[in-house]
Amino acid sequence: MIKLTETVQKGGCAAKLPAGTLRQFLGGLQMKRPPELVVGTENLDDACIYELGGGTALVQTLDFFTPIVDDPEDFGAIAAANAISDVYAMGGKPVTALSILAFPSQTLPLELLEPLMRGALSKIEESGACLAGGHTIDDDTLKLGFSVTGLVKTQEAWRNDGARPGDALILTKGLGTGTITTALKIREAKTDWVDAAVASMKQLNRTEGLLDGIEVHAATDVTGFGLAGHGLQVARASKVGLEIRLADLPCLPGARECIEEGEMLNRAHKTNADYTQAECSWADGAGWARWLTLDPQTSGGLLLSVPANQAARAVEQLRARFLRTSQIGVVTEAPNSGPRVRFI
Amino acid sequence: MIKLTETVQKGGCAAKLPAGTLRQFLGGLQMKRPPELVVGTENLDDACIYELGGGTALVQTLDFFTPIVDDPEDFGAIAAANAISDVYAMGGKPVTALSILAFPSQTLPLELLEPLMRGALSKIEESGACLAGGHTIDDDTLKLGFSVTGLVKTQEAWRNDGARPGDALILTKGLGTGTITTALKIREAKTDWVDAAVASMKQLNRTEGLLDGIEVHAATDVTGFGLAGHGLQVARASKVGLEIRLADLPCLPGARECIEEGEMLNRAHKTNADYTQAECSWADGAGWARWLTLDPQTSGGLLLSVPANQAARAVEQLRARFLRTSQIGVVTEAPNSGPRVRFI
Repeated sequence: MIKLTETVQKGGCAAKLPAGTLRQFLGGLQMKRPPELVVGTENLDDACIYELGGGTALVQTLDFFTPIVDDPEDFGAIAAANAISDVYAMGGKPVTALSILAFPSQTLPLELLEPLMRGALSKIEESGACLAGGHTIDDDTLKLGFSVTGLVKTQEAWRNDGARPGDALILTKGLGTGTITTALKIREAKTDWVDAAVASMKQLNRTEGLLDGIEVHAATDVTGFGLAGHGLQVARASKVGLEIRLADLPCLPGARECIEEGEMLNRAHKTNADYTQAECSWADGAGWARWLTLDPQTSGGLLLSVPANQAARAVEQLRARFLRTSQIGVVTEAPNSGPRVRFI
Repeated sequence: MIKLTETVQKGGCAAKLPAGTLRQFLGGLQMKRPPELVVGTENLDDACIYELGGGTALVQTLDFFTPIVDDPEDFGAIAAANAISDVYAMGGKPVTALSILAFPSQTLPLELLEPLMRGALSKIEESGACLAGGHTIDDDTLKLGFSVTGLVKTQEAWRNDGARPGDALILTKGLGTGTITTALKIREAKTDWVDAAVASMKQLNRTEGLLDGIEVHAATDVTGFGLAGHGLQVARASKVGLEIRLADLPCLPGARECIEEGEMLNRAHKTNADYTQAECSWADGAGWARWLTLDPQTSGGLLLSVPANQAARAVEQLRARFLRTSQIGVVTEAPNSGPRVRFI
């Protein structure tokens, strides 16, 4: 039985290029900005919003990566759930997905294609979207992802720039997929940990029917930059501060053990620390919990900013589908000085 | 000065997986087909058509590949023009592009990112679309492409299944980019040949304003499967035959020399021959011209099926922007037996 994570080379192969690198080398490019592009890349939001007229807009996003789990059907499902998540994080309804597949036909049996795409299809169709096309190349390392398009009413789109002081912050999934999948790759993860992480990553971030009566002021999904990085992006875009309680963070089983082991931190933990350190602070003695906030998530949960008086109800309703949903902190005024995001 | 084509490994790396392989291993997957998906993957058309309601539809496509030319700005422009082309081939108007970038930061200087994306942006913006997001990973081999969305009036979309017996076939660009870029990679191409091929690949397939008064019954763009492969897909989807005159094929300067040299045929020439041989025929002694019909194109021209009595005017109008536009053959009834596509 082929273990997909063993086919991925160590080191930086197929990791995300750091945001700072892209800014440094591409920051000087002049880009046209048509008025239809309501949300572009300016606030590092989860997806773009392109107004079609009549109050309806496209929500578009694209993501792909190398295997982080061993089973092809699980990997397909996670790659799809992860890509679709950005549409959910904007409040959109997914309609189409195009596949991005790089397959090493010299080193992996072509029979893996079927479970891989079956896993992906199951999540695409569960979301209500359809697989409408794609592109497949022969490459050295397996990579899978999707370009996903959704529809949203432009005025009702969830953006990352609408958080208001006094809001409560809610996170819908446990943290720790980064450290657990790193442990899996070096064969140090317990089966229970992997199973829980895989189940979490496969779960669609669909909140349809769970947020009736709740005003969502801002939303994002927690992915590669970790809770600290994506929280910081919300804080910057919304021009607010965040105060997040380390003790209240939902955590996947085994995440603490993996982090405390020390060997299960990967390159992204360090680049996320670099990315956030100037504008985030952690309580003295945060220890492993600090790394949990920097843990790069795949198909992580939604971070929602909602009115404080609706928070308890939102948590209760979300738990019907997202068991680890937790209220993790509050939105504050933007600080005059000091860190924007404080983990206390 | 880094020559990008020298960074691409030889052999099958990052080539398209053969269509037959995908059919063999993925043909058994059951896929839902919502009524909004007017054109999916069934006819191997250039892009999907997804009805939004009110007679407007999305046209969506995705393509990416490794460097086929040496200059980063040219490569960026070609990758963008090539991906956008599928929207034009459906009669759509491009609105958004999301980038797919795999960059080998260990072996290529990050300074290449800027000209690469500048070249791409120039073509995206020339098409009227905007770059609305994307995903960048660190990988072993440079790859660039785009997921492009356009809009089209559903009833006016150009499909590959509408060719009618008696139509004239028109091709808007010269053939030969496959063999010329193969020659470039092994340093056997003359500068003039490369310059002409690069200029052709960078040209957008935008026909806006050039087809007034012309009914386009069917269209496709000629890309990886060559004129024979894409012609065959039109013939199959439209349930017709094609008769194409080898002597009338427009040809890029140097393409004949490269093919006759023999060493400048690549793997795709052979897989295209396999793909088409059961349903295509070539006149005795076709020689190099047969390989020209099998030459894998990057950002190739449009193949248009138009009423015979409009063909001369269409060619004249198209030549205002596409100098090599030629009437290359006719559409016939589907043969009862024998080849569907005959090169005479």
